[in-house]
This record gives sequence, structure tokens and C-alpha cells, in this order.
Amino acid sequence: MSDPDLFPPERLAAAQAATAAAGLDALLVTPGPDLQYLTGYPALVTERLTCLVLPASGPATLVVPRLERPAAEDSPAPRTGVRIVDHADGTDPYPLVVAALDGPPAAVGLADQMWALHSLGLAGALRGTTMRLAGPVMRELRMRKSPAEVAALAEAGAAIDAVHLRMGEWLRPGRTEAEVAVDIAAAIREAGHASVEFVIVASGPNGASPHHAVSGRVIGPGEPVVVDIGGAMPSGYRSDSTRTYVTGGGSPPAEFLAYYDVLREAQRAAVAAVAPGVPAHDVDAAARDLIAAAGYGDAFLHRTGHGIGLSGHEEPYIVAGEALALEPGMAFSVEPGIYLAGAHGARIEDIVVCTGNGVQRLNTIPTELVML
Amino acid sequence: MSDPDLFPPERLAAAQAATAAAGLDALLVTPGPDLQYLTGYPALVTERLTCLVLPASGPATLVVPRLERPAAEDSPAPRTGVRIVDHADGTDPYPLVVAALDGPPAAVGLADQMWALHSLGLAGALRGTTMRLAGPVMRELRMRKSPAEVAALAEAGAAIDAVHLRMGEWLRPGRTEAEVAVDIAAAIREAGHASVEFVIVASGPNGASPHHAVSGRVIGPGEPVVVDIGGAMPSGYRSDSTRTYVTGGGSPPAEFLAYYDVLREAQRAAVAAVAPGVPAHDVDAAARDLIAAAGYGDAFLHRTGHGIGLSGHEEPYIVAGEALALEPGMAFSVEPGIYLAGAHGARIEDIVVCTGNGVQRLNTIPTELVML
Repeated sequence: MSDPDLFPPERLAAAQAATAAAGLDALLVTPGPDLQYLTGYPALVTERLTCLVLPASGPATLVVPRLERPAAEDSPAPRTGVRIVDHADGTDPYPLVVAALDGPPAAVGLADQMWALHSLGLAGALRGTTMRLAGPVMRELRMRKSPAEVAALAEAGAAIDAVHLRMGEWLRPGRTEAEVAVDIAAAIREAGHASVEFVIVASGPNGASPHHAVSGRVIGPGEPVVVDIGGAMPSGYRSDSTRTYVTGGGSPPAEFLAYYDVLREAQRAAVAAVAPGVPAHDVDAAARDLIAAAGYGDAFLHRTGHGIGLSGHEEPYIVAGEALALEPGMAFSVEPGIYLAGAHGARIEDIVVCTGNGVQRLNTIPTELVML
Repeated sequence: MSDPDLFPPERLAAAQAATAAAGLDALLVTPGPDLQYLTGYPALVTERLTCLVLPASGPATLVVPRLERPAAEDSPAPRTGVRIVDHADGTDPYPLVVAALDGPPAAVGLADQMWALHSLGLAGALRGTTMRLAGPVMRELRMRKSPAEVAALAEAGAAIDAVHLRMGEWLRPGRTEAEVAVDIAAAIREAGHASVEFVIVASGPNGASPHHAVSGRVIGPGEPVVVDIGGAMPSGYRSDSTRTYVTGGGSPPAEFLAYYDVLREAQRAAVAAVAPGVPAHDVDAAARDLIAAAGYGDAFLHRTGHGIGLSGHEEPYIVAGEALALEPGMAFSVEPGIYLAGAHGARIEDIVVCTGNGVQRLNTIPTELVML
């Protein structure tokens, strides 16, 4: 996480210029992907206030709880030139934010993931200041990944691919989803992730719920199982990949096999649609039109994809109505799904990055149905 | 998670009464511990809006993204009588919240952990409405654990105790903190947790940073190592326990051994101070006074403890200035620490619950220094 290629210290200056251009006097950035992007500091998200105070011009201040000061000082944050001030447990931290501003601001941008506990705490200390979201500023900075960031996402992609390739070790009829998930979670860490962000093992009818996590359901023979897994690497960059499996000892329903082929074609078409200048909604449509043409339009319950980086979901979103033109360095998931309530479902998800002339997949394992 | 003892459906009515008593017209509750407490639904925290709209009187509505509807319907939430409405990706969800309210409210309470993305989205849809925190209402409901909740916390405590008892399998000189953390994380899941919430392995000088996580540092012989670990059980309830170890192959500094004994006495004194009617700050003082008397007052960088339940940190906080009188069912950590910058540190943490006439430890393993 101290790689200066991943977290170059000059990002604060770029963010200040963007803040001024957006008509904001400052950004107030609590822990989360924006703070990590700007300073390299992977701070804990808690009730204690940690907040980067970044005026549109002038020195930046990082307000931290006293017990976090050693961690903040050990992080890459000091390299950016930010000044660190701390507050003791039981004292009011919000006046420290006001003091770090050069007079009361007219408008500030709050990190999109700032808790209401803190946004209302700050609003109370900054009466008369208009609160807006920092998101529109931050997305312009974070949306186009640098070569170092693409390399970090490729490393994450390879790590999660390695876990999918081992699925046959764990995913067997007679085991519960929860038991399989324990093994997958261990493998996610063994593959080099620093944390497990989510493990979805959705067997049989549970596969029709896109964000089913795990349950005590015993997996049957010949059943479709949607496995959607991801973690955060030590770099902070995320992995996220879905494959659909069929367990041994039986055959899946014929309809499942038929729509899986449709889904695979749809996912391939959406990946192939990625190129500089293509509107995001065209990538969504590339998958959705094929699925709808096969009669499964209503069974594709969600957008085709989301950006990924230091957070699991970020800009750009690959969704109907999003006219944003893709640019080199934009990295996102392509993950159409088909969900038949009460029966079964399937999803295929790869992370891809828009290149200078097309697309690069950061998950590189096959998308054929895996019969275990 | 569907245990009706843990998530009784009548909590919505209690929350409505408390909302009215607080002078609020409604609570708006996005995913997190408040939503899980009220409905049993452990919803994902994302950029997509999930929001319980709970008016001070009248029917409650749960606004969910369309792809989450199956998960919401499978959760205990429908048992509470809440009506579920959904929104498709790419559509504006905030008008659904307005529609679920019986006219524009004067004041609403926002879940403390609501993202600014959503709180400002809601503020835009509810112009003229005063936004306050739901925290003061929710803490009165959540702070005194029911017998079922205490049982769930005891189950979590036993699970994390079992991990600490295995530390000698992994914590050895020559290994890195990160390598040890991978093994601990796997064991946290093997012990019955559904997720790993944090793994701190802070060896040698890293032990002086209370929230150091892990690093590539190679652990030396005879070194003090602070191990602070926790996860969430399938019930949603959390574990959190710290022990300090000394690795084999050498002896720790004499000063470390001396202040560890002070710390152990301080932790024991704070636990012993817990009883109904005792102000929270007295429990803090019980530990702090002993540590200060030994000359380490400035080295105890944080409060003595925090509440625990469906979130890792919640009310009550055991901190100077907190006059709240403890009551039966209040559950919290007792975790004094001593941190010597550049050298080493130690912390001992148990979760305890205030009983009718004293205290019950939910972590029951010894607090003696463990020489591996």
C-alpha cells in the first residue's frame, strides 16, 4: 500500500484544482475509497471522526482520533504533505475541521460514503455552509485508472481466478452453502487477498436471488450454483468475479442449459462492445438485447456492470440511461444474469478495462459452464 | 438470523413510539445494524438505496433495489408487517421514500451510518424537512440486550475465545504478521463466524499502534504481539477480543513484563467495577487510575471500551465524561492498553455484560500473559 505508483502524492493538488473548478471551497473526506485514493491511508470506518480537510487551495489537514495517529503516520498520507492533528476520545472533534478551514466555507463536498453521524456533526459545526457530494469531483479523478492501478486490478483478477479454478475441491452435493463458503473464504485469503469482501454461494432456487449470500441449504446433485466472490488485495484494489457451476451426480434442468448459453453469448457480446467512445448504455444493451430476444428480458433483474477499484462498486455504471463515453483506463464488471424465481439462476462476471483500442479482460478463465 | 427471539417483530412498534417521543415524524434507516435490529434484514451497504421508512405512526415501508427484493423477502423483514417496494437500476429511488411518508415531514431521523450519497439524496427529495440523527432513538432500543441477544454475544465470545486458544499453532518467530493473519482469519470462520471483521497482529514496535492491522514485518523471537480479532456470527452479533502474546525463542523486555502486570490488574479492576447504577466513566477510571498511578497514563491512548451487538462499536461507550448509569443487559468491551512508541505495547480485551447484580464476562479465557 506504500507503492508511490499506486498512490502518487500529487493527487491532492489535482483534487484541489477539481474542487475549485466544481465551485466548492473544500472537500471533507472520511475513511473509505476516496480517502485511500487521495492519501493512500486505508483508515478504519468508525464512529470516531477521521477526516481529510482539503481546501480548494492551501494546506491540507488530516483530523484523526489519537489512537489512530500512529497508523496514520505509518501510512503513505504524510508523503502528501498533509498535516495530521488528533483528538482524544470523549472530546468534540468537529471544531478541528472548522479550524482546518480558512474561514467558514460557502459550500463543501462530502465523501459519498460519509456516515450521517459525521455529516450531521459537520453540518452542526458549519452552519450556513451548503453540503454537496464530493462524488462528482472524485469520480473524475478515480474513474480512469492509471497503468499502476490497472496492474493492481489485474493482480486482483488473477487472484480471484485462482480461487474459481479450485471450486471442485469444495463445491459438492451434500455440503451446505455455508460450509462451502468457509472454504472459499480461506482460499480467497490464501490467493493473496488481505480481506474477503463477499462470498455468494447460491444453489438451486437460491440462485434466482442475485444477492443471496449463503445459507444452511444442503446443495443437491446436478444443481446449478452461482458463485460470486471478491476481496481486497493488500494494495486496496478489489476483485469481483462470478461463475456458475453445476454440481456432480446429476444433470441440471434442460431450460437452465439453454439459457446459460444465451447468457454466455450475452456476456461475450457486452465485453466485445467495450471500446473508447462507446456509451456505457451500449454495453448494457449489448447483453440485454440478446437476453430479451431469447425471452428472458424480465429475468435480467439488474444493470450489466459497475466500476471497480478501491471500492467494489464505483463509476462508471454500465446501465440503461448512462450515456458516459468509455475511455481508456475505465475498469468495470460485465455481469449479466438470468434469474427464474423459485427455480434457479445464472450469472457470469468478468472485470474488464477499456484500452486504447478495445478491451482487456482482467479475469481470464473460461466462461463455459463448469460441470463439476 | 431468522430466530424470532433475536429479532422479535414487535420492535417496529417500539421504535415508532420512541420516534414520536423524540419529536420525529419518521426514521429513515439504510442498511447497517439499525436496520438489522429493527427488521432482521442484514442488507448490503451499497450505492443502491435500501431504506426502511418508519413513520411515527402508520404502516412501514422497505424500499429496496429490484435485485435485492428476493433477499429482502427471504429475510425476517416481512414478518414485521413491513411493505416492500422496489426500484430498478437507473431509476431515481428517493421519490419512493417520499411516497411512503404520509405527507412532507417536519423532522426525520437518519440512521447514523447512512452514507452522504443517500442522506443528501433524501435531503434533495425532502426539502424543508429537518434532518436529525436516529442514533438517540435507536440507542435506547439497542443498548440493553435481551436474554437472546446476550446468548448470541456469548456464542460469539466463545467462538473467538476458541481462536485465541489456538494461537500457538500460528504465531511463531520467522513468520510475517500477514501470514499469521491468514491463518487466524481462517480459524475465525472455522469457529463459526460468518465473516471476519478485523485481524490485528501487531508485533514488537507495531504493538504500540492500537489499530495497526497487519504488515509484512517478520515476527522476532521473544517479542510481544498484540492480537485483536473479531467477526460476525450468522446471528449478526459480533465478537471482539484481544490478548497479548510473547513469541517463543527469547524473552521480552523487562519493562514490558512489568507494565503487562499493571495492565492486567487495570483490566481486572475495570471488569470488577461493572454493576447496575455505576456510571460508565467510573469503569473507565477504574482502569485508567491504576495505569496512571504506575506512570503510564499518557501511554493509554484510548477509552476503556465500547458497546457491542449487531455493530462492532455502539453505545454505551466506556469513556471519561460518560455519566450514563449502567443497566442490566448493557454489553461492552473492557480493553485498556499501554503503548510505548517505537518499542512495544499491550492490550487485554474482554466483552462483558452488566447483570442484575454485577457483571458476566462473555470472553472467559485467562488474561495472564501467554508465553508461546
